[in-house]
Amino acid sequence: VVGTGVIGRSWAIVFARAGCRARLYDRDVQQAEKAAELLLPWKTQISVHTDLASALEGVGYVQENSPESLEIKRQVFRDLDAAADPAAILASSTSAFDMSRIADGLPGARRCIIAHPVNPPHVIPAVEVLSGTATDPDVVERTCAFLASVGQTPVRMHKYIHGFLLNRMQFALVREAISLFEQGVADLDDIDAVIRDGLGLRWALMGPFAVANTNADGGIRQYLTGHEQWLMELMDGLGGTPRVDAGLIARLGDAIDQAPGGARRQELRVWRDRMIARINELKRKEPSPR
Amino acid sequence: VVGTGVIGRSWAIVFARAGCRARLYDRDVQQAEKAAELLLPWKTQISVHTDLASALEGVGYVQENSPESLEIKRQVFRDLDAAADPAAILASSTSAFDMSRIADGLPGARRCIIAHPVNPPHVIPAVEVLSGTATDPDVVERTCAFLASVGQTPVRMHKYIHGFLLNRMQFALVREAISLFEQGVADLDDIDAVIRDGLGLRWALMGPFAVANTNADGGIRQYLTGHEQWLMELMDGLGGTPRVDAGLIARLGDAIDQAPGGARRQELRVWRDRMIARINELKRKEPSPR
Repeated sequence: VVGTGVIGRSWAIVFARAGCRARLYDRDVQQAEKAAELLLPWKTQISVHTDLASALEGVGYVQENSPESLEIKRQVFRDLDAAADPAAILASSTSAFDMSRIADGLPGARRCIIAHPVNPPHVIPAVEVLSGTATDPDVVERTCAFLASVGQTPVRMHKYIHGFLLNRMQFALVREAISLFEQGVADLDDIDAVIRDGLGLRWALMGPFAVANTNADGGIRQYLTGHEQWLMELMDGLGGTPRVDAGLIARLGDAIDQAPGGARRQELRVWRDRMIARINELKRKEPSPR
Repeated sequence: VVGTGVIGRSWAIVFARAGCRARLYDRDVQQAEKAAELLLPWKTQISVHTDLASALEGVGYVQENSPESLEIKRQVFRDLDAAADPAAILASSTSAFDMSRIADGLPGARRCIIAHPVNPPHVIPAVEVLSGTATDPDVVERTCAFLASVGQTPVRMHKYIHGFLLNRMQFALVREAISLFEQGVADLDDIDAVIRDGLGLRWALMGPFAVANTNADGGIRQYLTGHEQWLMELMDGLGGTPRVDAGLIARLGDAIDQAPGGARRQELRVWRDRMIARINELKRKEPSPR
C-alpha cells in the first residue's frame, strides 16, 4: 500500500483482514505510524516502511494512493516500475486520470492498471478496474481475481471516461438534487429522505437496470414500453449543471447545518460505515438469487 | 383503499399492519378478492367493498390508486368528494399529476392531497406529500402525521414539479446509466454492480447531501471547495437524454437477459423486498444518530 492516507489505510484493512501480508509505505513517518495504529488487530501481518525499495520487496500487488495530481502519479509510477518485482501488478486508486497517461513511456506500462475504490474500500466493495492502452489483458484478469479474493467487487470498464462510472452516476443524481434544492421544491433533508428511505433501499441490493427489470412482471421491456414519451420528457426537463461556487456551497452548508444531525458528521460517518458492514453481512448470509 | 392493484394492496398492508381498520374498494370484484387473500393475516381488520358509498362509511383517510389518467383521477375524486365524510382526507397515489388539476372545482378541494408512495409502500417507507393550490395546510399536517403513525416517511414537497423528487433523481441516474451502457463504457451488469455494491450502500442510510457532508472532516463545505471546476466539468459532460424507443428497449432487454439473474425477475423481486425489510429493521434497531 503506497500512500497511507484515508484511502490507503482502508485498503490496508481490506488486504490484512483477508489474510494477506501487507506492506505500508509512506514518505511521511507520522502518517504511516497513524496507519499502523489503525491496523493493530493485524499487526503480525503488516509492516511499515519509509523506504520504497524495502517496502516493495517480495510484493505481488501494489495499491497506489498518492495525491490526485498527474505529475505526482507519473513520478510515483516511475519509481514503482523501477523498484518493484517485474511480475508485480501496479494498481492506482486514482479517480481522475487515464492509466495511459500515468504510465506513458514506462517500461512496465503493461502491468499498470486502475483500481479505483469507493470510499472507504474496507466497507464498500465496488472497485472500478480500468486498463491503460498498454495494459496486458492478463493483468486485468489477475487484478479482478485478486480483488475478488480479498472480498471486493471488481467492476470492469471497457474504456476511459471522465469520472468513470461511479462519479458520473453519483453526480448525475447530485446535480438533480442540487437543482431541486435551488428551486425550493423541497427542503434539503426531505430531498435526502427520498433517497435514504426510498431509492437507496433498492439500490443497496440491485442496480438501476435490475430494479427496472423487477419492477414489472414482464421485465425491463414492459417497464419501459408505453412510457417512452413520459420518460424522455422527464429526462429532458431535468435540471442543468449548477454554478458550483462559494454562494452555492454556503447555501448548502447552511441548509445542512440546520438539518437533523448536520453537525454530528463524525458520529454519522461511524454509524454509516458500521451499518454498511451490517448490510453487507445480510447480503453475504442471504445472497441474491442471481 | 380505493383501487386494489399492486400499489393499493401494498397500501392496505401498511394500514392493516399498523393496526388500522382498512376498507378495500374496487369495482372489479376479482381484483378486490385477490387483495383480500393477500391480507388474510389481518382479515379481522379489513373489509372488501364493490360499492363506494359503503366502502367510505366512517373512513377518515382515503388512499386512491386508480390508473394514471387525469380524466379517471378527476372522476374518482368527484365521486370520493361527494361520498366521503367531509372531514376525511382524500389522498392520491399519483406520480404524474398536480392535485390542483385533479381536484379542480371540487367543493372539497381543500382536503385533497397527493401522497405518492415508492413501490411497494409496505416495504419502502418514503411517501411524497404535495398540496394542490386549494389544499388546507392543516390537511398537509394531518396527512404527514398519519403517514408517520403507520410507519411511513412523509417527504414534503413545496411545489409541483414533473416527476416529483423521486422520479427526477431516479431518472437522472438512469439517464446516465443508459448513456454509459450505450457508449459501451461497461457491461450492463457492471454498471449495476457500481450501484448495488457501491453507491447504493451509502444511499440506503443517508441521502446525497448527508453523504457529501460526512465524506470530509470539514463537512459539505470542505467536500465541495477546491473541486468546483472538476465538478462542473463532470456534470456538464454527462450524457444527454437517450432516444427511448423500441431499439433501445430491445438492447436493454437483451443485455439484461444475458446478465446473471436476468430471467429470474420474480425470485429477485421477492428477495429484494425481503432484504429491504431486513435493512429497515436494522435501521429501526440502530437508528441514525441524527
